[in-house]
Amino acid sequence: MSDVFAFALGLRHKNADDRVLDCLFPQPLIHPQGDLAEAVQSVPSGCTELTPEVAAKLAAQVGLSAKLAPLLERDEPLVAVKLVDDAPITCIEDAYLKLHLLSHRLSLPNSLNLERIFAHLPNIAWTSAGPIDVNDLDQAILNARSEGLNLEVFAVDKFPKMVNYVVPTGVRIADASRIRLGAYLGEGTTVMHEGFVNFNAGALGPNMIEGRISQGVIVGAGTDLGGSSSTMGTLSGGGEIIVSIGEQCLIGANAGTGIPLGDRCTIEAGVYITGGTPLVVLDEDGQPVREVKGRELAGHSDLLFMRHGLSGQVICRTNRQAIELNNALHAHN
Amino acid sequence: MSDVFAFALGLRHKNADDRVLDCLFPQPLIHPQGDLAEAVQSVPSGCTELTPEVAAKLAAQVGLSAKLAPLLERDEPLVAVKLVDDAPITCIEDAYLKLHLLSHRLSLPNSLNLERIFAHLPNIAWTSAGPIDVNDLDQAILNARSEGLNLEVFAVDKFPKMVNYVVPTGVRIADASRIRLGAYLGEGTTVMHEGFVNFNAGALGPNMIEGRISQGVIVGAGTDLGGSSSTMGTLSGGGEIIVSIGEQCLIGANAGTGIPLGDRCTIEAGVYITGGTPLVVLDEDGQPVREVKGRELAGHSDLLFMRHGLSGQVICRTNRQAIELNNALHAHN
Amino acid sequence: MSDVFAFALGLRHKNADDRVLDCLFPQPLIHPQGDLAEAVQSVPSGCTELTPEVAAKLAAQVGLSAKLAPLLERDEPLVAVKLVDDAPITCIEDAYLKLHLLSHRLSLPNSLNLERIFAHLPNIAWTSAGPIDVNDLDQAILNARSEGLNLEVFAVDKFPKMVNYVVPTGVRIADASRIRLGAYLGEGTTVMHEGFVNFNAGALGPNMIEGRISQGVIVGAGTDLGGSSSTMGTLSGGGEIIVSIGEQCLIGANAGTGIPLGDRCTIEAGVYITGGTPLVVLDEDGQPVREVKGRELAGHSDLLFMRHGLSGQVICRTNRQAIELNNALHAHN
Repeated sequence: MSDVFAFALGLRHKNADDRVLDCLFPQPLIHPQGDLAEAVQSVPSGCTELTPEVAAKLAAQVGLSAKLAPLLERDEPLVAVKLVDDAPITCIEDAYLKLHLLSHRLSLPNSLNLERIFAHLPNIAWTSAGPIDVNDLDQAILNARSEGLNLEVFAVDKFPKMVNYVVPTGVRIADASRIRLGAYLGEGTTVMHEGFVNFNAGALGPNMIEGRISQGVIVGAGTDLGGSSSTMGTLSGGGEIIVSIGEQCLIGANAGTGIPLGDRCTIEAGVYITGGTPLVVLDEDGQPVREVKGRELAGHSDLLFMRHGLSGQVICRTNRQAIELNNALHAHN
Repeated sequence: MSDVFAFALGLRHKNADDRVLDCLFPQPLIHPQGDLAEAVQSVPSGCTELTPEVAAKLAAQVGLSAKLAPLLERDEPLVAVKLVDDAPITCIEDAYLKLHLLSHRLSLPNSLNLERIFAHLPNIAWTSAGPIDVNDLDQAILNARSEGLNLEVFAVDKFPKMVNYVVPTGVRIADASRIRLGAYLGEGTTVMHEGFVNFNAGALGPNMIEGRISQGVIVGAGTDLGGSSSTMGTLSGGGEIIVSIGEQCLIGANAGTGIPLGDRCTIEAGVYITGGTPLVVLDEDGQPVREVKGRELAGHSDLLFMRHGLSGQVICRTNRQAIELNNALHAHN
Repeated sequence: MSDVFAFALGLRHKNADDRVLDCLFPQPLIHPQGDLAEAVQSVPSGCTELTPEVAAKLAAQVGLSAKLAPLLERDEPLVAVKLVDDAPITCIEDAYLKLHLLSHRLSLPNSLNLERIFAHLPNIAWTSAGPIDVNDLDQAILNARSEGLNLEVFAVDKFPKMVNYVVPTGVRIADASRIRLGAYLGEGTTVMHEGFVNFNAGALGPNMIEGRISQGVIVGAGTDLGGSSSTMGTLSGGGEIIVSIGEQCLIGANAGTGIPLGDRCTIEAGVYITGGTPLVVLDEDGQPVREVKGRELAGHSDLLFMRHGLSGQVICRTNRQAIELNNALHAHN
């Protein structure tokens, strides 16, 4: 077993005061084994700026010589980041490394220690000229203008967008500004223009995502999120329950959930289910079995949620028999 | 009558392996007549790369000499695409030509044969350096970085955004990333930041669009889509019914429809009507006439849909008398 | 007291026909006093193109020498805009000056005379090469292509995005294309990817904004707008009532309001309250007190709006006693 949690060679942008703005890791490693483990053994743990010789040697050992050739040729300063274990974040470089691990599909959302990430990521102006210290932006806009250039500012945020750093295979992303670095997009996932995926959140693939995947939320294979559908995040009022959505679910357009769902669940377009929503559960014959709060159904499979057009009642249909259903619900109480 | 369905002179981007990435047609023709028909007669059908002489001659004949002058001067390779009929799509060039026909307002949504378009459009990284083969993107990011440049990736998708290719007259588009090439935006249409228009979909104009127009959906003159409102598409769970919205309608913010609407219809903010929604129809005096499913009202005019705040019932008000209404509903059954 | 309402030194883009496209004011002044008032006294009112000498002198007097140095060195033509009072807008320069006053936090939304702003702002193509006259765009795309360059079109709109002109301190903006110049973002405000802020609208800060702040809407300190939540604007069907939201409110995801709210109000996720929504008010013991229309609760504090999952009724809970509540409601009738 490896005694290194993660390792990567990367490139940083810095401002005029030598403050690090971001970090790009073209091919991070998790739990490096064998030759790779040996290669990184001599590297100190933490963040190390490399001499050109060491950079070239390490690049060769971790299989990055070809990719990094244009940088190595110019003696572009490279950095090595070696994390011995998955501890809370202590600097911008290890924050970026963990976000890369997620987007490179080397770690699943909620599997990494991201404690203190907000404290260590600086607020950056993401521009057509690359990342700029937000304090330097005013002057940068005027300087560009004096040279007859346009400086386009895309965002002012702690997190960059994923695709400037990582483009996983087999995905389509209609509006890249809506996927943060640290999103996990599985093979076969399409994120349409209205879709959004936060860091430490993701779709395991294949998925059609036209809704919002909040921080901490994982969506299973074959599940579709309709346009503007919402998954409640723990960062924004969702409370203690971590929402997740199983496989083969369909969350309708403008619908949403504040509870985790199992597999093969459907929420009708325009209906929002929260933990506190009182609703009626119907059995396979459409007969009412019980009144419950949304949270009592958390994680169950084969549920169809809708609000009835005539009674105004939120109902949950299932394909199970009343007795089986009653037992299942009791088991979760 | 012309024996040519469509013709255009265009410009392509290719990758290093000569694979075509996209195609720009500054002024496509549909059913060319008279002199134009004669000009294109000698061009073989399908996609033909032109010699500089032929390119210059054709450009003059189809009225593109001035526009294309900077390209012709450099002997930039041009391509001619001639479609004899509106057959299924066979290559990227004819896919792009049909998308241009829609955005140039030469064809209405749902009037073109777009069969196999997904199969022939490659997945492209749309970047600040233009389209890049998605397989070349990783290296392109590093190469840019080694030259001190920023490569901004805007999307990874089969469809580009419209305004890099076509900007129809008399429109405003607040966020261009949300309008795909192949969208049809009529004169006088404003698409606000929350608006979205897919390919083969559109607003006939004038319209205020702050909601989503899904593939295949057409919105009539004078109709407003409120913020985040949804039209259900056939590509994503809308089933067999093609949604369309007539003239002078108002779809409220966060509302949506899975059924086609006639003229002068309103859906209250936050209400989603699907084909399966049970609802109560009220006559001009507010008296209940009938319980129906949403789909029975498909295509009717002068309807106001809301969910009552006290009964929770979805109701549909109209300005018609009960008896007239009953007949109209029967006629559609 | 100052006899000048506002003053600024700025930079304009023009097209080939000398038509002004936009205007950047790095540091506008409102009601300049003392030395500043004296400095601008000699400047004619309205819009004046400055000679290099006058520009340099004025820049020094208003404290902009350092910032504008790269422009002054090149004798870049600067413009002075001096508004004696807050009159209706008469040209593009004073429109831009007022939009800058808002985004620089020098004026609150709804405090400026913006009459005729739509008439004086031209429709512009906002591109990677800066603003382009929309009539020149087709040719600009082809010219760029002939030079092997990509011209990226970000928007075709009367209003530019804020952050290309003003980046207020202490804010995060995840997708800059969704904040128009003229938005007011107070210290400590985060606008997430789904957030939107129109011109003459804003969040006083600190706020977490994941919903849409329509033109004319102000959101108070400590209030959160959930993902895709909606505030109804007067420009788009909201009618006469100007919506505002007080302090410490929470508008749930996919929820919305067409009425102004006081402090500490909550709207449950997925619920839309309009002025016409009939609903039941419950007192602190959960007992029904009265049926009202939404508009009767306009501006009240300490309200919780939800739609009950079993009755389908829209209810409004409060922490007040029935009798107190009844009086408060009567007072507003």
